[in-house]
Amino acid sequence: MTTILKLGGSVITDKDRRETVDVPALEAAATAVASAIDTESPVDDLVVVHGGGSYGHYHAEEHGVSTTDGTHDARAALAIHDAMKRLNGHVLDAFGQRDVPALPVHPLSVGARDAEGDLSFSLDSVRTMLAEGFVPVLHGDGVAHAGEGVTVVSGDELVVRLAEGLDADRVGLCSTVPGVLDTNDEVVPEIREFGDVAAALGGSDSTDVTGGMAAKVRALLALGAPAHIFGPDELEAFLAGDAPGTCIDG
Amino acid sequence: MTTILKLGGSVITDKDRRETVDVPALEAAATAVASAIDTESPVDDLVVVHGGGSYGHYHAEEHGVSTTDGTHDARAALAIHDAMKRLNGHVLDAFGQRDVPALPVHPLSVGARDAEGDLSFSLDSVRTMLAEGFVPVLHGDGVAHAGEGVTVVSGDELVVRLAEGLDADRVGLCSTVPGVLDTNDEVVPEIREFGDVAAALGGSDSTDVTGGMAAKVRALLALGAPAHIFGPDELEAFLAGDAPGTCIDG
Repeated sequence: MTTILKLGGSVITDKDRRETVDVPALEAAATAVASAIDTESPVDDLVVVHGGGSYGHYHAEEHGVSTTDGTHDARAALAIHDAMKRLNGHVLDAFGQRDVPALPVHPLSVGARDAEGDLSFSLDSVRTMLAEGFVPVLHGDGVAHAGEGVTVVSGDELVVRLAEGLDADRVGLCSTVPGVLDTNDEVVPEIREFGDVAAALGGSDSTDVTGGMAAKVRALLALGAPAHIFGPDELEAFLAGDAPGTCIDG
Repeated sequence: MTTILKLGGSVITDKDRRETVDVPALEAAATAVASAIDTESPVDDLVVVHGGGSYGHYHAEEHGVSTTDGTHDARAALAIHDAMKRLNGHVLDAFGQRDVPALPVHPLSVGARDAEGDLSFSLDSVRTMLAEGFVPVLHGDGVAHAGEGVTVVSGDELVVRLAEGLDADRVGLCSTVPGVLDTNDEVVPEIREFGDVAAALGGSDSTDVTGGMAAKVRALLALGAPAHIFGPDELEAFLAGDAPGTCIDG
């Protein structure tokens, strides 16, 4: 059973304070992961992806780098990459202290975008790490991009690539919201097509250029595996095989 | 013109002192690279690989990890990997200070060995970085290995993979020796087949299990590009298109 778990950058960092880990939140997440892989749980092969929070986003904005607008300035690319490696180091430390056999996979080292922005991302390292009992930990990062220099690859984009490439059984997105909310701010338990939530999410793509919840729901509907969006308090339940928050299954 | 440059670990570190950079040697190498890419030189696309020196080897030996004997202990794998990333950070700093647009490529993130030990190593990131004007900097590292956990991938092995995969025009190995030495300790200017130096290098494979000069010469003879082994004082000449030290061209 292969599980992809995304830890949102706003879950594990204090988004308002530059390069600040939310230590209690990170420790709680690491503890949940440690107990899940230590027990007879549905989690067998686990890949973790974390977002940038107050690490990556700050530097990306400072240098005007996005998923489509790049930089040819190696210093700018390194500022983003090094910040993300610092956050990744904190995540690995929290996991390692709880005996989670986590190893880092830095996307800048692996992937590339072509001139159309399509991402190629070899999964050789991730697959072999999983087969050997390790927990690969990836993160939003910079990535070389034909014609653009270096652009951003988001954690969400990596989740999609991993879920498809590894033929994952379950995808979990641990975020600061408890799920996809309807127009009454209630969690929608299940989404099977975009029409289910179009009204609540604003519908048209044109209102969603920043990649908000509508884009996330569309991407997750296209996956071959059920995806769950839930809050930090539900991480343990997700890892135990439950379906907390919103289940998106297209 | 694609050039692969290996900076030997014993060139840029003090091999006798744990995790100690040879700062003057590293700065001299970075200065030579900076002036080569800044001028009308034969260096157009440049990939740099550095060895482990007193960083990687120390931790690899401490944990009994080699290119064939691995570890399933994530802490041991991380000890090797993190040490190599610290050295890589020093190399990137030295390059960056001289306006070399260097970006790191960490082999643990990219590659994997199958059960036979054969290395798969995607060059998507390296190729796109080169096309965008960056200088990818790789290093000896750990790599996930089917059945073994994590083993070592040497800088020399990466040089061969890069030279073949990128169809490199020239390969340079900057080491602490001025070239391949004959039985009179004189530099052999050219080697076109192993028989040229078999006597000087001890000949049989059985005396060379640690991957010394004989194994290196055999690997370089099999490349499709001329390879040059030279000392640190000759780096500038190599980058200018000269053929210092020993030229190995099979």
